[in-house]
Amino acid sequence: MEHNGGLGERRIIEIIENQLEIMPRMPIPFGDDVSAYEIGNGNLAVLKTDMLVAKTDVPKGMSLWQAARKAVAMNISDFAAKGVKPKVILVSLGLPKGLSKKDIEDIGKGLNAGAREYGAYVVGGDTGEASDLVINISLFGITKKNLIMLRSGAKPGDLVAVTDCFGKTAGGLKILLDDLSAPPGTRKVLIESVLMPHARLKEGLALSQTKAITAAIDSSDGLAWSLHEIQKASNVGVSITKFPIAKEAKRLAKINGLDPFELTFYGGEEYELVLTIKPHLWRKAEKAAQKAGGKLIYIGKTTAKRQAIFEINGKKSTIERRGWEHFKSSNA
Amino acid sequence: MEHNGGLGERRIIEIIENQLEIMPRMPIPFGDDVSAYEIGNGNLAVLKTDMLVAKTDVPKGMSLWQAARKAVAMNISDFAAKGVKPKVILVSLGLPKGLSKKDIEDIGKGLNAGAREYGAYVVGGDTGEASDLVINISLFGITKKNLIMLRSGAKPGDLVAVTDCFGKTAGGLKILLDDLSAPPGTRKVLIESVLMPHARLKEGLALSQTKAITAAIDSSDGLAWSLHEIQKASNVGVSITKFPIAKEAKRLAKINGLDPFELTFYGGEEYELVLTIKPHLWRKAEKAAQKAGGKLIYIGKTTAKRQAIFEINGKKSTIERRGWEHFKSSNA
Repeated sequence: MEHNGGLGERRIIEIIENQLEIMPRMPIPFGDDVSAYEIGNGNLAVLKTDMLVAKTDVPKGMSLWQAARKAVAMNISDFAAKGVKPKVILVSLGLPKGLSKKDIEDIGKGLNAGAREYGAYVVGGDTGEASDLVINISLFGITKKNLIMLRSGAKPGDLVAVTDCFGKTAGGLKILLDDLSAPPGTRKVLIESVLMPHARLKEGLALSQTKAITAAIDSSDGLAWSLHEIQKASNVGVSITKFPIAKEAKRLAKINGLDPFELTFYGGEEYELVLTIKPHLWRKAEKAAQKAGGKLIYIGKTTAKRQAIFEINGKKSTIERRGWEHFKSSNA
Repeated sequence: MEHNGGLGERRIIEIIENQLEIMPRMPIPFGDDVSAYEIGNGNLAVLKTDMLVAKTDVPKGMSLWQAARKAVAMNISDFAAKGVKPKVILVSLGLPKGLSKKDIEDIGKGLNAGAREYGAYVVGGDTGEASDLVINISLFGITKKNLIMLRSGAKPGDLVAVTDCFGKTAGGLKILLDDLSAPPGTRKVLIESVLMPHARLKEGLALSQTKAITAAIDSSDGLAWSLHEIQKASNVGVSITKFPIAKEAKRLAKINGLDPFELTFYGGEEYELVLTIKPHLWRKAEKAAQKAGGKLIYIGKTTAKRQAIFEINGKKSTIERRGWEHFKSSNA
């Protein structure tokens, strides 16, 4: 079925952007994960808005509390990728008919839980009636202009790293939606990754302080997509030589005959950071991530040739520019 | 029919707020028109988010361009009421299936038109699929803390004023939805007020500079509702002695046998400012509004007794605490 004349999410954004008059001296260009406004003394007001629509973003098995918390976490993940601490959150709710007082309390509690988990507060918002449950989150924070991590600074020869292994949410979604089987422990980890996503805010804030990071993005649209976005914004290529698959995803793939490469590179709704790092500052970055309670996993390098290659055991394959896209994935 | 267990929009907001941990030293309390965060040197970052849902906010006869422009204008109206200049706008779009490239261009053009009309720029956003057309706007601006106009500063004996007469949008909506008849000139003005609402930003900015304003709100939920909100937030009463009905609304009421009081006080989606003013600074405020290209219309006074009274030609009536509320109005 064709949606919106066959237009995908990214094409729609492009069409909208083409109608807009561009603000002079815009500190962060369209297409990065957040927007900003210069407020003097080298500071940026950083802004982000993103809409969770239950129909496409809330899988079977996710509670209203979890959905509300996720709406906050998925926005904070973008702040994490830019190294910006969220201060306050505004919420717009579109509520379908038939919700009970308890349902609305659960939504409120989930919003608060998501905010407080990352040190932010919900300070305002709005509600109205809608056909779907819609939770729109707006974030605000402040950062030094010279600390913000954009998508666009990678140079050939930088090291490519991620904050954890991949494939858990893609696996978890398959369990929730397609009833795949898995041992209880594996099942729990995979489902948890979908229902209780976690933004890598501590890591992002610590990494931005190191000045080691040349480009950063979160992996909400999938690892492959994130690599391609850095490639496009920084005008480099990437050569991935490590296969960062989570052990639970690997196990699920084996049991159910799934393609582990597909789970790892083309999943989505997975909120890790994908980073490029100055080689001589690798140790500094790694230590910062560890001190923040996380880790940095080396997976490859950036290259001068603009192509995304996965190269392991002497075998080369192309990492395709595709990923998680609601519009196209739901009925394509 | 019962919606959400019979809960209205304002009750839902209350339930949500009760689940939230309150930010210490919140510069603007819940329940005012905007939210804020202190950024030092006496400055506030001011934030606002509001969602337009086509099903309840876009009447028959309104184009996509107009709907997008309105989504911006209705948010800017709240900034106007607080005396804050909007700097940048973020947009989240929920798009139903079946929109064409032209439709999306029209939405983009409408967003840009709304932003530029008030000197702001759209600098970012997001899009996804939804059942309804949903346009969520987030505004950001900066102001001096001591210039912001809240709902809560009115004192007994202040003068109550509005920036224009009322009843045009309520009348226009009746023409669009119930096919009421009106002479062409009247019809045009009334419909225009619905399709092309205008935020009183120039007036709001000028008035905030005068320090004459003790409380302010816009009238998007209706004049009666705005008066009650000021009353509640400032702990005063209001005695309205002038009947600020627009001549076109008066004409429509006469032709169609409508209650002019209902049109004037209990309409909605009308974006005037409702203000309370220190009596000795009335002339200063009036001049500021006029210099900004607008006007101030005196309609009454605030009182010590907490009641909202309309008193004209010796006859008293109570202004009820009711107004435009989507949830309850659509099927009640």
